[in-house]
Amino acid sequence: MESLRVELGSRSYPIHIGASLIGSRELYAPHLGGGGAAIVTNVVVAPLFLEAVKRASGARAEIVLEDGEQAKSWRGVERVVDGLLAARLGRDGLVIALGGGVIGDLAGFAAAVYQRGVPFVQVPTTLLAQVDSSVGGKTAINHPLGKNMIGAFHQPRAVIADVATLDTLPERELRAGLAEVIKHGLALDAPFFDWLESNIDALVKRERGALGYAVKKSCELKARIVAADEQETGERALLNLGHTFGHAIEAGTGYGAWLHGEAVAAGMVMAAELSALMGHLKKTDVGRVRDLLRRAGLPIAGPALAPERLMALMSLDKKAAQGRTRFVVLEAIGRAALRADVDDAQVRRAVVAAGQ
Amino acid sequence: MESLRVELGSRSYPIHIGASLIGSRELYAPHLGGGGAAIVTNVVVAPLFLEAVKRASGARAEIVLEDGEQAKSWRGVERVVDGLLAARLGRDGLVIALGGGVIGDLAGFAAAVYQRGVPFVQVPTTLLAQVDSSVGGKTAINHPLGKNMIGAFHQPRAVIADVATLDTLPERELRAGLAEVIKHGLALDAPFFDWLESNIDALVKRERGALGYAVKKSCELKARIVAADEQETGERALLNLGHTFGHAIEAGTGYGAWLHGEAVAAGMVMAAELSALMGHLKKTDVGRVRDLLRRAGLPIAGPALAPERLMALMSLDKKAAQGRTRFVVLEAIGRAALRADVDDAQVRRAVVAAGQ
Repeated sequence: MESLRVELGSRSYPIHIGASLIGSRELYAPHLGGGGAAIVTNVVVAPLFLEAVKRASGARAEIVLEDGEQAKSWRGVERVVDGLLAARLGRDGLVIALGGGVIGDLAGFAAAVYQRGVPFVQVPTTLLAQVDSSVGGKTAINHPLGKNMIGAFHQPRAVIADVATLDTLPERELRAGLAEVIKHGLALDAPFFDWLESNIDALVKRERGALGYAVKKSCELKARIVAADEQETGERALLNLGHTFGHAIEAGTGYGAWLHGEAVAAGMVMAAELSALMGHLKKTDVGRVRDLLRRAGLPIAGPALAPERLMALMSLDKKAAQGRTRFVVLEAIGRAALRADVDDAQVRRAVVAAGQ
Repeated sequence: MESLRVELGSRSYPIHIGASLIGSRELYAPHLGGGGAAIVTNVVVAPLFLEAVKRASGARAEIVLEDGEQAKSWRGVERVVDGLLAARLGRDGLVIALGGGVIGDLAGFAAAVYQRGVPFVQVPTTLLAQVDSSVGGKTAINHPLGKNMIGAFHQPRAVIADVATLDTLPERELRAGLAEVIKHGLALDAPFFDWLESNIDALVKRERGALGYAVKKSCELKARIVAADEQETGERALLNLGHTFGHAIEAGTGYGAWLHGEAVAAGMVMAAELSALMGHLKKTDVGRVRDLLRRAGLPIAGPALAPERLMALMSLDKKAAQGRTRFVVLEAIGRAALRADVDDAQVRRAVVAAGQ
């Protein structure tokens, strides 16, 4: 097991990475107050891992939701809060989020607002959640007008990333998780991007050593950014590389048709094309981005939607500030930057250049 | 106008107190980002003050809710969030809460979760909100199983307490607000309690000088406590004097039958009786508490409910920690303390001693 630390003063917390961690009592024990623990999970994850986590944590209640993005709704939060109240979880109780990004976002948000905030631990069981959504304290639910429109910054007390849980992950979800891994290299760390080019086949084959390294490296990069800019007033926005496009793809195709990572993959191609059009990124580097994503089995072009439709959806995106959408662009592989001086015509051309 | 400051580092904010402040442009201007402003209010307050606040703040949208505690619900938050999205309020937008405690709690919670938190300003128009709920950053909605069970700590950018708005406040609500004023003296400041004994008639008659002083003094006391213990891990709990009993009275009689301040008044008598039973408070001081509350026109006995019913409701109260309810007791007038060593038999005797 390797352990990293997200440095946030009194709210600092560890990320534990390794195989077969979810059944380790000693990883939960430091976070159990006197108020009991409750596990939030879904119908797909529960048969696989619920018993092990229950035994290790001594949780006295479980809330098992349906599978899928639709759980990230007001109704979903209500169900979790109702369950926590039924379990009489106190202010010193612990919420354990066991599952992928949807469960982490939803259970984290419920923990943020239940009795004005109770502690929670993330136990991510998808690659996407292990490398991205479980770290950093962003919690949220969706609104019909946009993803993650309602939420809170609420840091977990610990993240337990057990790469053995990835053995049962459907192929398509593994690949979607790789999109965020690639994003970390592409936005922040050129040597890691190089490493990914050399090891993408091993990752797709789920070689555990490669997966462990990719999770650790992603968490390190994300932890550094979160420590510097917890509330996303600056640097943290770089992690949104490809996401303005990606969110529009998800909204335009109906949430769930494209997985988040798939949308981000196509979005990164668009962001790379935009960067090239603006004269920041070499054309050959756009090619490297496409190649790596393609080898990971990810989409490198957008959905069959009119560029105007994507543009309209992007203007609704929550990163819109003062009526103008800011974009994360690439100045080089491994060096992202946030720019507001992007005009709509360039964005449209980038969407067209990425293709459908 | 007098201005105090709640000292919370980067989240410090001013409280402005005076007559005819709500129409002052310069009080809103420092808090208007580029994202526009939206006013949240209700059908009772809107005809009185909405236009003045709209003009002074340049708000581009208003969300007008029904009157009453039932607005503090999941449905209420959804309505506010829907309204903020419809107004396309950005992350740098401003929410203005114009109304009493219900509007402040609800709009504050909506501002806390909308896009993971946007700035808000409190414009309290009831005495209760001016002396208590608008200061300190506690926001919340109710759950059928308990008041304020869902919420967030989200500090406002400013509080604009205009005592002229109290001219139109119904008599009963004015008296309910005085309960929290008295609480501040009783829990924290003996000279202020003495002052209240000398000036309670002037307050009931709404003499503006007396009201201004009572609001300022209450805000000063609350601001000091909040600065020392923002998240209520210790000292801030002293402000809950009478509230464990009071919440049970509100729940037991059906929310709305008793006003919050009325329930807190009867709750303070119970807390005083409990303190006397425990040997902390002199019997003559219990008499002073009853006398002052009675002169303020507030209830000094509980509702027609079996003591067992109140006891059961208290055990559900959110301040329950590790299965044991903590009580705020009085060691003297002006000196409250938090105690866990209170047994149920004593609590029951205190309820009976307060009478019905």
